[in-house]
This record gives sequence, C-alpha cells and structure tokens, in this order.
Amino acid sequence: METREALLLGAARVLARMSYDKARLRDIAAESGISEGALYFHFGNKDQVASAILAARQERMTVVLTDTMAGDGPAMEKLFRVMRGLGKLIASDEVVQAGIMLANGTSTEAAEAHEPFFEWIRIARTLIRLGIDDGSITDTTDPETAAEFVNYTFVGAQVVSGLADSWASLPRRLVAVEGALRVLLASGQSS
Amino acid sequence: METREALLLGAARVLARMSYDKARLRDIAAESGISEGALYFHFGNKDQVASAILAARQERMTVVLTDTMAGDGPAMEKLFRVMRGLGKLIASDEVVQAGIMLANGTSTEAAEAHEPFFEWIRIARTLIRLGIDDGSITDTTDPETAAEFVNYTFVGAQVVSGLADSWASLPRRLVAVEGALRVLLASGQSS
Repeated sequence: METREALLLGAARVLARMSYDKARLRDIAAESGISEGALYFHFGNKDQVASAILAARQERMTVVLTDTMAGDGPAMEKLFRVMRGLGKLIASDEVVQAGIMLANGTSTEAAEAHEPFFEWIRIARTLIRLGIDDGSITDTTDPETAAEFVNYTFVGAQVVSGLADSWASLPRRLVAVEGALRVLLASGQSS
Repeated sequence: METREALLLGAARVLARMSYDKARLRDIAAESGISEGALYFHFGNKDQVASAILAARQERMTVVLTDTMAGDGPAMEKLFRVMRGLGKLIASDEVVQAGIMLANGTSTEAAEAHEPFFEWIRIARTLIRLGIDDGSITDTTDPETAAEFVNYTFVGAQVVSGLADSWASLPRRLVAVEGALRVLLASGQSS
C-alpha cells in the first residue's frame, strides 16, 4: 500500500474510535504504521488530513456514479444500480465511512463536506428525467419531488445502517426498498 | 424561564455553533445568562449537560408520540400525525436540535443517544399493525418492512432538512412525502 493510502486508512480508523477534535496526528501515524515525519510530509496538519479524507470520499463516490451512468439499460435500472453501487462502497470502504462521519460532525456551511450528497441528488434527478424519456419511469412523476423521495430513502437507510452495524447492512437495506421505489416511480405517486 | 431550562437552551445554542469537545461550561453559562456557580449546581460537568439535553429531547419526543397515539382516527392517519408532530418539534425546538447533533456525534454504543430513534421505529411498526387491523393499511403490508421504509423516509428528510436549513423545511418535506407513503401503505408494496 502506498504511504498516502496507508495514512488515509490509519486516519479513518482513528476517526472511527474517537472524535476529530480528540484525534492527534501521532495517533494517526501510529495507526498507519508510518512515521510522524512522513505524515507531516503528506499532510501538514489535521485539517489537511480531514480534507484528504473528504476528497477521497468524493472521488470514490464519483467513480461509482460515473461507471454506473456509463452502462446500458433503462434509466430506472441505472438509478437502482447507482444506489446499490454507493451502498456497497459505503459498506466496505473505511475511508468513505470516515468521510461520512466527518461530514456529520461538520456545520451546514462546509460545502466541501456535503458536496457528494448534493451530487447524488443531482444524479438521481437526471436519471429520473432520463427514465421519463425512455419510458422506464411514468411521465406523471415530477423529477424534483421523486428525486427528493428517493434521496430521503437512501439517506435514511444510510443513517440507520450506520447506527445499527456501521453500514454493513446498507446493501441489504437498499435492495429491500427497491420494490417500493419501483411502485412509486411507476405510478408517479411520489409527487 | 426557570434556571434549568435557561441552561439547557444556552447549552443548545453553544452546541449549535461549536463541537461538544470544544464547548466549555463557561460558554454555556455566558450564553444562558446564568452564573457558573448555578451551572455547576444544576450540572456538575459537561457530560451531565449532554445527558440533560439528550433526556430533554427524549421527553419532548415522547410527549408528541403519546399525545398523538391517544387521539382518534384510523392508525394510518395517526402515523402521519406522529410524523408531522415530530417534524414540527424538531423544526422549532433548539434543545431537541442540540440533542440530534449530540446523538450524531456519538458512537453506536451510546444507547441513550439513539433511544428516541428506536422508540419511533417501534411506534411506526405498532401503528402499521393497528392500521392493518382497522383496515386503513392493506393487509399485504409486512409491518416490519413497511415501518423500516417509513422510518428511512423520516430520517432522510430530517437529515436533508438539517443540512439545508437547520430543520426549518422538515415539516414541509414530511407533508410532501405523505402522498407517496399513502400509495405504498395502501398497495402493500413497501415489502
């Protein structure tokens, strides 16, 4: 593993067991198995560690979004593929998990922390519009309202799985809601 | 306002602008307009302030839940009344808001922080069972799965409104999802 990735993972593990305010650069160095000198070389201070974790979360979520958008099939199926892909990423990637925890502890103003979230809403809205065009989603659906509903479901499942089992159950929970979302998007009653 | 309530509100306002780890008892005393001596009399240390905020959140949510459960009407309507009641409480009560922020910054193990959340799921499940009995909810609905879906929607709307405008839009967002939830509970497709 390259040094930067080892440091990100070490920081993620430290932030999983203590708050950002309590975590120290030396804890991260120890957890990473990397010298404090190397840590200072890659990240000059704790805020830069936090920024790097938030940036890694955004990059990794964007990879899932981009890969899924590029695939074939009706837009409604892409929407569910995006949800499943994000669910698997969140359930399995400790750096992404640390990014979520950092964003939760951050105020409304920190645009950097909440950008992946708003990106996901934009993509849900786009896929719902495309689904109306390709006929996979009923044309009585208001894309804005339907995207908000889909988003609440995703965010709610993420938060509940985070509390229940550190996101391990998120993929299963997202599969469980697909049937209900299909009914809503097909009937246009999410508006 | 009695001293204890003034201290809770002062603590809530301090926690709205800084993290729990950074907040100091003297900040809370200053914000409350109460002497540090009185603060120490009511709350010996910062952890006791946090516990008092979490307890106040639980009490106030329980009042909404109890009042709504006691009313008349089909169980499905009670379910929506509970959601609307909790939405208004969260949108308007700074102590409840501080409790939500404290719970967000707390690990999975802190049962005290997450109890209101699990109480709400239990009540949603009970109301869905009662709704199946009184005919307001279709009997093809699995109460457990439907309660999880309703809960994801509520939690998602809470989190999104918290980010967007410190919960001011939560009541409007919850009203907006009622139509979709009615379709799901009536069709039994939430399972």
